Amino acid sequence: MGKPRSTLAGAAIKRWRSEGRVAAWLHIPILQSHFIAPAASLGFCFHHAESHSSTLTLWLGEGPSRLPGYATHQVGVAGAVFDDSTRKVLVVQDRNKLKNMWKFPGGLSEPGEDIGDTAVREVFEETGVKSEFRSLLSIRQQHRNPEAFGKSDMYLICRLQPRSFTINFCQQECLKCEWMDLEKLAKTENTTPITSRVARLLLYGHREGFDKIDLSMEELPAVYTGLFYKLYHRGLPESYRTTMGVD
Amino acid sequence: MGKPRSTLAGAAIKRWRSEGRVAAWLHIPILQSHFIAPAASLGFCFHHAESHSSTLTLWLGEGPSRLPGYATHQVGVAGAVFDDSTRKVLVVQDRNKLKNMWKFPGGLSEPGEDIGDTAVREVFEETGVKSEFRSLLSIRQQHRNPEAFGKSDMYLICRLQPRSFTINFCQQECLKCEWMDLEKLAKTENTTPITSRVARLLLYGHREGFDKIDLSMEELPAVYTGLFYKLYHRGLPESYRTTMGVD
Repeated sequence: MGKPRSTLAGAAIKRWRSEGRVAAWLHIPILQSHFIAPAASLGFCFHHAESHSSTLTLWLGEGPSRLPGYATHQVGVAGAVFDDSTRKVLVVQDRNKLKNMWKFPGGLSEPGEDIGDTAVREVFEETGVKSEFRSLLSIRQQHRNPEAFGKSDMYLICRLQPRSFTINFCQQECLKCEWMDLEKLAKTENTTPITSRVARLLLYGHREGFDKIDLSMEELPAVYTGLFYKLYHRGLPESYRTTMGVD
Repeated sequence: MGKPRSTLAGAAIKRWRSEGRVAAWLHIPILQSHFIAPAASLGFCFHHAESHSSTLTLWLGEGPSRLPGYATHQVGVAGAVFDDSTRKVLVVQDRNKLKNMWKFPGGLSEPGEDIGDTAVREVFEETGVKSEFRSLLSIRQQHRNPEAFGKSDMYLICRLQPRSFTINFCQQECLKCEWMDLEKLAKTENTTPITSRVARLLLYGHREGFDKIDLSMEELPAVYTGLFYKLYHRGLPESYRTTMGVD
């Protein structure tokens, strides 16, 4: 971008401001990235970039930028596959960790993937065990996780029902994998604080009823036409689920 | 980058591959963005970019890339501020919406902000009411939200305890704001499906005890030295919270 062009761009920014516009956006394909540095000289900075394009913004309004930020969290999901009849739960030990601690299999969500689907997929990929989503049990929020590229981390643990029992675990990811007695897992020191806590939660549910610990899931219509979202909360008695019932 | 340089870069990539490296990363300051297009010609693409720098990756291993992705979710939080003594809950109507429906005040998390802190901050910014975090009530996951720049959306609703009652609402964001009887909110059609559902959940909690609907929060030590995370799950009886108790 030569001097005449950047002068033109400067004039455009002045005009936008006088017209009351509060922000300018630039979408630049990766092969045209030579436009980025001159735009930065005019005050633009990255809003985000992915794959083969980048998006830059310039705040034109008064005061600090009020533009919405970009995604702030990675989402991981683990599956606690519990077999009520044998009281055993599926656990793994990661390969490549300093301490070999028992944990529930799990991993990062793919873009656009539902929580329960991530749990079922990750459990199958790591252990070879097939399962079905039952409920959400626990949510963890963590900041400054060094594996999240400066972003925050949301980690959810689901209760899953086993549909197969033969273990065929991923040798690249796991050192060990087994069906462990739930009480043994709840008592062992050889585990992470979160696994220990959820093991006790499961034990409580196993003894007193899973309705004590479960967040049930339901699909509801979004305000955007044709879209649906998944909502997780404590189970509600039938009488509270209808408008009539709340009287 | 002239021809000799890109030949050099090509030779470097060849050497990294022969050394068994599986990925190359490039961190490029925004004012040096003229390096991006030539890197893209060599196969690099954006991993992410923010503010004044971009990060590019090139997968050198076999098969499709196994590199971790970048943050996939934006996180929003709403606060259901409920005054047990008057049975009233704080609701707003957004300005600039086609339909004016009652909803709980809330908004997007700032980078690094805890769920409960977002709820308390957003409630105060929108309504002028001060409050304290009590529990997490509900989690929504939504994909293809057109306001999320192609990313997914996680939306959490917290139960908050009011610490002040005078409404002084933000005229830029809200059209109306009031303390509404909880039963009235649970019955009205002039609300969103998620607000209606959570209003019934609150009504159930108000009548039968909030322990029926709450996910309690606790801080636990992370595996990363000096860091802590927040964990949300159903309350556990004291006997299940200690190793001894689970016998």
